[in-house]
Amino acid sequence: MPWIRRDITLRPRPRGFHLITGEIVEAVPELRAVRVGLAHLFIRHTSASLTLNENASPDVRRDFETWFNAAVPEQFGGWTHTLEGPDDMPAHIKASLLGPSLTLPVADGRLDLGTWQGVYLCEHRDAGGPRSLTVTINGDTGTGG
Amino acid sequence: MPWIRRDITLRPRPRGFHLITGEIVEAVPELRAVRVGLAHLFIRHTSASLTLNENASPDVRRDFETWFNAAVPEQFGGWTHTLEGPDDMPAHIKASLLGPSLTLPVADGRLDLGTWQGVYLCEHRDAGGPRSLTVTINGDTGTGG
Amino acid sequence: MPWIRRDITLRPRPRGFHLITGEIVEAVPELRAVRVGLAHLFIRHTSASLTLNENASPDVRRDFETWFNAAVPEQFGGWTHTLEGPDDMPAHIKASLLGPSLTLPVADGRLDLGTWQGVYLCEHRDAGGPRSLTVTINGDTGTGG
Repeated sequence: MPWIRRDITLRPRPRGFHLITGEIVEAVPELRAVRVGLAHLFIRHTSASLTLNENASPDVRRDFETWFNAAVPEQFGGWTHTLEGPDDMPAHIKASLLGPSLTLPVADGRLDLGTWQGVYLCEHRDAGGPRSLTVTINGDTGTGG
Repeated sequence: MPWIRRDITLRPRPRGFHLITGEIVEAVPELRAVRVGLAHLFIRHTSASLTLNENASPDVRRDFETWFNAAVPEQFGGWTHTLEGPDDMPAHIKASLLGPSLTLPVADGRLDLGTWQGVYLCEHRDAGGPRSLTVTINGDTGTGG
Repeated sequence: MPWIRRDITLRPRPRGFHLITGEIVEAVPELRAVRVGLAHLFIRHTSASLTLNENASPDVRRDFETWFNAAVPEQFGGWTHTLEGPDDMPAHIKASLLGPSLTLPVADGRLDLGTWQGVYLCEHRDAGGPRSLTVTINGDTGTGG
């Protein structure tokens, strides 16, 4: 099958962790034709990131925000890159700890995640604005057999 | 070549870091036909993860467990998601810090890792039970030339 | 298109975070033929890693080094794997926090990164020596239409 590529713009979200699985699936209808393959989600920023975690309890996402703020504090004495505001340098570190991309199995036309897995947009800035994602998919369509 | 997909169930392991490279290679005999390509390992859970690290000294894996327990402590005052036990919320954070997947080069029919690299199953729960992995492989078989 | 694979040796760098985007692009001229696809960068070591972050201010890379040294300190009381020097065990942990690989979109013959994104070599040892990378690329060339 030909490679599929889609650019998605996510609306601005408040700082924190947000479940976006459904939004991504809706934005890539070509997914439905893939029998077995991989989907690559890539965020085009250095102060927001993507991760996969629990898709049920909102308190899990809240606790993510609490822990990351404690682990990478704005008040850390070592920052020298402070020109872009106190939330900027912590956002860069958090983004690298979580990573800019996810590669996910695709099966029978859908993202083939575990029962409790969902895609999080991790917004590390106070006012990050809209965020751009690139989704790239390759796989077998199964039409050949 | 057609895409290869295999689902693997790993037996329950105690909380900690476990070397599973050999087990994965044995479970995917189709790997041997790939001349150049990529293997994607994906764990279908949010409280266990995969990483690549030193495949020789067991004390490295023990030190991983010690450091992660100190960095993401059960006694952290900020947890609100405590219903599933004190080890649950730290397990979710650790799982996202390390990540649910690895994409690894394949060459001449084998996982093409560095000399000291091995695949770790990172079990973050006290009693995580069996863990499900999905392995997806694509590449050239070289039979065409 | 056939899969592309290139092995690259990076010259020794001091401990810290180093921008290597240009060096990688120059080492893989085959990239220019790819219309849409993915490039996988893989570091063959367990005490150095790869991440994507801000490509402009050198102070961001310096602050990465400062934060990671504070978060994973050489003086941490829990280390038992100390035979290879005080910088070794922290290097292993940092390498897994950041990860050994990056999967990046390719479009119209180039790495298709966000405006501010660059590839960092994260050298976690005091004297890590030369580092080996394997780059694997697959995609559509578009010559078929």
